[in-house]
Amino acid sequence: MRKLKVISFGLGPIGCSIAKLALSRTDQLEVIGAVDANPALVGKDLSELTGGEKPTGITVVNSGRGLYDKADAVLHATSSFLSVAESQLMEFCENGVDVVSTNEELAFPWFNHKESAERLDAAAKKGGVTLLGTGVNPGFVLDVLAITLSGVCANVSEVRATRILDATKRRVPFQKKVGIGLTTGEFEENVKTGKFGHIGLPESIAMVSDTLGSPIEKIEQNIAPKIAEAPIMTEHFGRVEAGRVTGLVQDGKGYSKGRIVARYHIEMYAQAQNPHDEIELFGTPTIKLQITGGTPGDIATAAIIVNSISRVVDSEPGLKTVRDLRPASSVLI
Amino acid sequence: MRKLKVISFGLGPIGCSIAKLALSRTDQLEVIGAVDANPALVGKDLSELTGGEKPTGITVVNSGRGLYDKADAVLHATSSFLSVAESQLMEFCENGVDVVSTNEELAFPWFNHKESAERLDAAAKKGGVTLLGTGVNPGFVLDVLAITLSGVCANVSEVRATRILDATKRRVPFQKKVGIGLTTGEFEENVKTGKFGHIGLPESIAMVSDTLGSPIEKIEQNIAPKIAEAPIMTEHFGRVEAGRVTGLVQDGKGYSKGRIVARYHIEMYAQAQNPHDEIELFGTPTIKLQITGGTPGDIATAAIIVNSISRVVDSEPGLKTVRDLRPASSVLI
Repeated sequence: MRKLKVISFGLGPIGCSIAKLALSRTDQLEVIGAVDANPALVGKDLSELTGGEKPTGITVVNSGRGLYDKADAVLHATSSFLSVAESQLMEFCENGVDVVSTNEELAFPWFNHKESAERLDAAAKKGGVTLLGTGVNPGFVLDVLAITLSGVCANVSEVRATRILDATKRRVPFQKKVGIGLTTGEFEENVKTGKFGHIGLPESIAMVSDTLGSPIEKIEQNIAPKIAEAPIMTEHFGRVEAGRVTGLVQDGKGYSKGRIVARYHIEMYAQAQNPHDEIELFGTPTIKLQITGGTPGDIATAAIIVNSISRVVDSEPGLKTVRDLRPASSVLI
Repeated sequence: MRKLKVISFGLGPIGCSIAKLALSRTDQLEVIGAVDANPALVGKDLSELTGGEKPTGITVVNSGRGLYDKADAVLHATSSFLSVAESQLMEFCENGVDVVSTNEELAFPWFNHKESAERLDAAAKKGGVTLLGTGVNPGFVLDVLAITLSGVCANVSEVRATRILDATKRRVPFQKKVGIGLTTGEFEENVKTGKFGHIGLPESIAMVSDTLGSPIEKIEQNIAPKIAEAPIMTEHFGRVEAGRVTGLVQDGKGYSKGRIVARYHIEMYAQAQNPHDEIELFGTPTIKLQITGGTPGDIATAAIIVNSISRVVDSEPGLKTVRDLRPASSVLI
């Protein structure tokens, strides 16, 4: 098999993890370019960002133009929001290069971002390009696992998913994202922006319900702070006093046919007890799956992006979601 | 969406469960025929075999000829062995009808039945047909779940899978299959036939290893009896005396690159304690998934066959395995 040529586009912490893993898959992949708009990164050798011992010979540039022609796929990690990412994704479509993206709203844009989804699908088909948004969540735990598990059910009446994770095991931007150290007032202000908490919960709920033949009608979300009952010590934020925020509790309910068909519950806070992922499908039969300790977020995100390259390159063109494609798979070493 | 027209081919206990579920999916499916070679079944209305209250108007016939032209897919449940099923599968290919089959050896025939796999793949492509072998096992727990879980791993060094199930929760032919009530001597004679125990373990191991980029070189299997330490009561076999067989313990080791890459362990016996399915991937990260109580075998098998119809109909022609296709999904009711 020929090696697939990829561009790392977006070099924040997750983008760098993706680039590092892609660089390590020397028998499958060739990283041919690295792109980031941040002037502080442009001009550096990619190894400086990925902790590599030797220079890669790949210099970070601020635009993908000039690289697309040689590439099979772009590994895109710039933003959780389609409002930011759509123009970048359009550029990839116009240049005929397949895309695996961490963009949470791209994972299933057909419910909350239908017009954007239609524009991207049309552009992807016109450019002969496959677009996929994936990651651990959305893209794996709360959607692919639930859909896959449903395969052994004669029917399902309700999908319940729970994800409890210790935020201090994650990268610093993630810890900030869940609000560690904030006052409750600051937390509430953040919630009001609509850009706070786990992005992608509605996408997972809508994907699962739609795939199981019941298009979602309404999703209710609630984001509440988790409050320190006693002071706790954190590596990055130091001492978090009692009464301050240690993270968040996020609930989502999906309605279809006028009733609740999906109940999702996420807790992401510092020093969370009993971290785990759980999918429970009520139906015939009722069945429950658990990932002990939970899916380790940051390395797992890089893994599923890199593991998705071949299935995206092999797919027919269009805006695809993880429900449309064969499972992403790792490599035995 | 138009309803897909299906033929139930093979009407043993599993075939009847499949037919019953397919008949219940009235908004998606239309059962247009029922086929079984057993003269005792031919001529009956399908409802007599599926416990339906009203006649279906579908009379069991002993050949699919005359039905294929109108069908989108055959739901095939006749045998665990390709030596029995290949001629039936060839007939489906010649008649241009897609196939979802419970045949265990069809799940991944590329290792143990390579020539048969090549003949079937060629015939399927010639006939414009998709062939898929699936089920709970092979087809779900010990392969799809392991492959899907690997998607969040940067790499995997070893796959371990465990399945513990209470055989008395399963259909009677299954209980016979695991040897309940036999003497150890009878059990060993059965093992020698090579047709005893769980069929499909090598298929799962080979599929996982091959999908993760390490084609399997050798598989070692061992099947040992589980012996009653004290008398136990079973619904079908009555009292099983101490010293008699209550079921089996089956181990499989897959070798690739000269070392063990997969260790599979199955226990199927009467009144098994702590039934569960577990996949553990050692690697970066190490990750463990468990299905509490295990996947309920017989209804789950019918479900995954019926849930696979649309993905098989949508697939391009050829002999496919579950690693090639999108996840099978159930329906929300």
